[in-house]
Amino acid sequence: MRAMMIHGPDFDGVRLNEVPVPVPGPHEVRIRMRAATLNYRDLTRVWLFKPGAAPFVLLSCGCGEVEAVGDAVTRFKVGDRVAPTFFPDWLGGPQDNALLKRNLGNTVPGTASEYMVVGEQAAVHAPATLGDLEVATLPCAALTAWRSLFCVRATRPGDVVLLLGTGGVSIAALQLAKAAGAVTIITSSSDAKLARARALGADLTINYRTTPQWAQRVRELTGGAGADVVLDVAGGETTAQAAEALRSGGTMANIGLVAGERGKSSGRQDIDHPFIRVGSRADFENMNRAIVANRIRPVIDEVFELEELGRAMKVLSEGRVFGKIGIRIR
Amino acid sequence: MRAMMIHGPDFDGVRLNEVPVPVPGPHEVRIRMRAATLNYRDLTRVWLFKPGAAPFVLLSCGCGEVEAVGDAVTRFKVGDRVAPTFFPDWLGGPQDNALLKRNLGNTVPGTASEYMVVGEQAAVHAPATLGDLEVATLPCAALTAWRSLFCVRATRPGDVVLLLGTGGVSIAALQLAKAAGAVTIITSSSDAKLARARALGADLTINYRTTPQWAQRVRELTGGAGADVVLDVAGGETTAQAAEALRSGGTMANIGLVAGERGKSSGRQDIDHPFIRVGSRADFENMNRAIVANRIRPVIDEVFELEELGRAMKVLSEGRVFGKIGIRIR
Amino acid sequence: MRAMMIHGPDFDGVRLNEVPVPVPGPHEVRIRMRAATLNYRDLTRVWLFKPGAAPFVLLSCGCGEVEAVGDAVTRFKVGDRVAPTFFPDWLGGPQDNALLKRNLGNTVPGTASEYMVVGEQAAVHAPATLGDLEVATLPCAALTAWRSLFCVRATRPGDVVLLLGTGGVSIAALQLAKAAGAVTIITSSSDAKLARARALGADLTINYRTTPQWAQRVRELTGGAGADVVLDVAGGETTAQAAEALRSGGTMANIGLVAGERGKSSGRQDIDHPFIRVGSRADFENMNRAIVANRIRPVIDEVFELEELGRAMKVLSEGRVFGKIGIRIR
Amino acid sequence: MRAMMIHGPDFDGVRLNEVPVPVPGPHEVRIRMRAATLNYRDLTRVWLFKPGAAPFVLLSCGCGEVEAVGDAVTRFKVGDRVAPTFFPDWLGGPQDNALLKRNLGNTVPGTASEYMVVGEQAAVHAPATLGDLEVATLPCAALTAWRSLFCVRATRPGDVVLLLGTGGVSIAALQLAKAAGAVTIITSSSDAKLARARALGADLTINYRTTPQWAQRVRELTGGAGADVVLDVAGGETTAQAAEALRSGGTMANIGLVAGERGKSSGRQDIDHPFIRVGSRADFENMNRAIVANRIRPVIDEVFELEELGRAMKVLSEGRVFGKIGIRIR
Repeated sequence: MRAMMIHGPDFDGVRLNEVPVPVPGPHEVRIRMRAATLNYRDLTRVWLFKPGAAPFVLLSCGCGEVEAVGDAVTRFKVGDRVAPTFFPDWLGGPQDNALLKRNLGNTVPGTASEYMVVGEQAAVHAPATLGDLEVATLPCAALTAWRSLFCVRATRPGDVVLLLGTGGVSIAALQLAKAAGAVTIITSSSDAKLARARALGADLTINYRTTPQWAQRVRELTGGAGADVVLDVAGGETTAQAAEALRSGGTMANIGLVAGERGKSSGRQDIDHPFIRVGSRADFENMNRAIVANRIRPVIDEVFELEELGRAMKVLSEGRVFGKIGIRIR
Repeated sequence: MRAMMIHGPDFDGVRLNEVPVPVPGPHEVRIRMRAATLNYRDLTRVWLFKPGAAPFVLLSCGCGEVEAVGDAVTRFKVGDRVAPTFFPDWLGGPQDNALLKRNLGNTVPGTASEYMVVGEQAAVHAPATLGDLEVATLPCAALTAWRSLFCVRATRPGDVVLLLGTGGVSIAALQLAKAAGAVTIITSSSDAKLARARALGADLTINYRTTPQWAQRVRELTGGAGADVVLDVAGGETTAQAAEALRSGGTMANIGLVAGERGKSSGRQDIDHPFIRVGSRADFENMNRAIVANRIRPVIDEVFELEELGRAMKVLSEGRVFGKIGIRIR
Repeated sequence: MRAMMIHGPDFDGVRLNEVPVPVPGPHEVRIRMRAATLNYRDLTRVWLFKPGAAPFVLLSCGCGEVEAVGDAVTRFKVGDRVAPTFFPDWLGGPQDNALLKRNLGNTVPGTASEYMVVGEQAAVHAPATLGDLEVATLPCAALTAWRSLFCVRATRPGDVVLLLGTGGVSIAALQLAKAAGAVTIITSSSDAKLARARALGADLTINYRTTPQWAQRVRELTGGAGADVVLDVAGGETTAQAAEALRSGGTMANIGLVAGERGKSSGRQDIDHPFIRVGSRADFENMNRAIVANRIRPVIDEVFELEELGRAMKVLSEGRVFGKIGIRIR
Repeated sequence: MRAMMIHGPDFDGVRLNEVPVPVPGPHEVRIRMRAATLNYRDLTRVWLFKPGAAPFVLLSCGCGEVEAVGDAVTRFKVGDRVAPTFFPDWLGGPQDNALLKRNLGNTVPGTASEYMVVGEQAAVHAPATLGDLEVATLPCAALTAWRSLFCVRATRPGDVVLLLGTGGVSIAALQLAKAAGAVTIITSSSDAKLARARALGADLTINYRTTPQWAQRVRELTGGAGADVVLDVAGGETTAQAAEALRSGGTMANIGLVAGERGKSSGRQDIDHPFIRVGSRADFENMNRAIVANRIRPVIDEVFELEELGRAMKVLSEGRVFGKIGIRIR
């Protein structure tokens, strides 16, 4: 079967390999993958690849159809449409680092292949309301947004949610926050992207190029109070300004490192600063209920073929994408 | 000024009195009341009235305009539209019985009068999006719903919220739960009321007259799982069936006693059973943000004049009302 | 039975009469009225009443329950909830003055009474999603809005609808226009009313007191183009400015005379200026489908008892009301 | 530049050609194309291609950025994002066959190329709320839906719109009809597609495989009345059953020939049967207003590279797609 594997620390090192179709054990299922999506985290898997290390199958997010099941499998049957979970071992409960060691597209083979075999506990049923590519946006980006808004914190109707940029996590968070009745503020360097964000329900928008003091603008827009929660997908120097934008008692979800490294302490002692690592299978299933009930349609801006994964990664690294980049697996 | 006071343990004991217009102290405001609404709790104030006790001004919920302010007042100015808080002393934080002793229309004068004087800490600004009668639905019924859904528990998008009947708390909860992206199930003995509930966003409806085993029906409608939260406004024998309808880990908000007395332990140890007493001023202000952001319009089914309060109470006691009964104070 | 009849050309001339309960003929139904609402047109019935003329039962809008049916009746049965039509003879088709001579609360008895008898062709089934008072807003105000937007013109998604003031027709039109995907602009002299209009979905608002050149402001808000349709509920001097606010090819629905007399020709030959007279029974039934499908909840700002009709009319004449004034018939 | 041209009457005849970049005349603009989409009509262009005929650039729908403008151009400037119109000569007014002779991807070069030159009158500004691929769904499929619902007929809130299958026109019509407050019924042979249609707002769904008498089912779902309008994208034998599903006075928009040939007269004389040919530039601009005002997001199910056009056409011909197939032009 075809699989896109990493062989060197740049996008040229992302290459097609022909590998044997995996065979499911008694408690495992084999999935014929149909779609995958990219996350910024996949780029770091490439950049951090040590020359000489063993190549592995990339990507953590995908959707496919169960095509074979082990004898002992009870959760799925052939023909079910499913998404593998990011952390195969984290089924529920609080974050426990011991359960996070195995994760797709890193320490275990990822979704960028024609077939995957996963334990039957390591997948969820795909929401029937979504197409394959849409389902493939959920396991990492959307779940990170969900966990930030509804697990480490209880976002309520009327809360003000601040989103930084229009990448995959922020756009998923925008949609989930609107479903929860929150007021949303989103930033971008592009007025065109802000127009699209408004069409997705963004209540207030800030162009951080023309308004570099965007934290102050958030305060103005909230009558001085500040936002209730911010999803810090950037880290680095962004974190300090994100903290300024928060109200006392607010939550800064520490998510990403697009700006270089994950956010450090802001010095503010009156805010929460939880470190987010995607979410558990139970979180995923709860999120799916919310997606179906609220008719959320994930946003996919570009789509590439499996063989073009390196090129797709380059596009993602250039920061032009609104929402997610998808990969069709035919 | 005119005030409706209780003089005996039945609705004939609810009578108009002419009393002096109260004068605000330095930290107080005087409100020209414009609207009030009824709650089931007001009926119990009548029924439990001990003959010979001192008459008092009834009702806990209202809306009016600040007409005079004490010298030290900073939170309000003349002309502000406000709603007094149910518990004048509970400004925020967890429920503390010491703060609940003073409550409107019971241990302190209520809203059924032309004028009220309250401490400046004991009122909130009225949401600009609502008319006076609509504001007057909020202080008790809507806030009880808010606290049940979002304070003693964190209702999330996709959660299943079960509502019993179409009274003031249930209808407010329906609107708040929909704003939060929840799935709502509501019961009634009347198909006509269920039709109106669907128009307010109810996803699933159960006529408990034709489906007396409604808890079982809730389980069927949720694929066997049960609801995540139920607002038990009835108590008495209803509580046991409400508990059956809940999923493991669910929440039964113990709210009312329409069925005779507040709900007793259901015996289930895998559910939460918090005892709700309206909410704090901070809760009220958070709820108002949600109401404005989500354009919620409270439901008022009938409106009476101030002088007709006894008659209005009788109508409420007959259980025919959908949502709230309002009182115009001209 | 009780009926509110007009005896003289002012609100003091609106008085309670005890009259015989009417008996339905073979093709008629008797309705136990439960609710009515007021329109500006009812005030003109009072003001134009000629002393010495025969008193008649006022009001054109109401809702009740069929309580008796003639032998030949097939459209309704006892227990049906219905609303009488404004023009008993206009069942469908284009406006034909011959069919408009008989109209409720004017040339035939109106809805301000305990019982009404109407021909079985002269009533429609009440939408199940609405309460009695809500149904009673439909026969004149909402239907006038419906006919203006969807019968004399085909309002489409994206069209710009301009509404003047926040009276019954304008607020119904706001709700119907939003259901149809239009962009709505509404004017008022009150920021508080504009806030409430925004909560009902108004996209853009203009305070005509602080912006007396509101037509020019409409042009600015529409990129110079002007609105596609305006509902001229005012007439008099307002008409000229309303015409200025319209785009070429736009429609000015000639509806009301709050400003003194119905609108005269604006001189513009590139706009339509249809003269609206409520609508037919078929229009009413089409509108009801739209109301149910789009979960529209009419807006009732104040409610009075039947006996208080004169007082309610005075309140309406003072122009303070947002939406409609209701009358409960107990 | 790269262009995908047709050389023979099957998908293998769809081949990449290197052709000169076109140069705009004084009244023309050159567009750097970014995205295109497929329609069933493009397949017929292939199937009907006469061996030996001159190859031409395929496809009618696209989106790009103006990159050069002729000296006399006033409607656009460099940098504008635009969509070419299907019929370059039909600017507005009723359908006139003389204006339809020139149409993209057929008698004039289509959108499947890196650059296009069109007259400045033959393009519209792209809605800012949409991404390039989303814009590229509009010129043919969405506009055909728009014209069927709002130009040859005035679809109103509460009207029942029947949609056959989940192809590009039907899904666009579903979204536009919902924006207009209509009730929508949609058919498919796939329950999975029906689930996705419900998530887009479909009110009622029919699986025509398990319910082959779907016209009868439409009548049941509408209380016997039938639908107000049906978009007949199929023709052939489907037309007769589509006619059965219509109410008297209803409209059958004659659109497509997926079932072999465009629909013939149904024999019913009480319905309208207009022959639809996409729409004019003015229609396109009106539709875009509706899309922006109602935050409509077109549905793209699959995306291919420009060079893969033949393969994409094959996928479309297999009928598996939900909504539209997109083509990225990099």
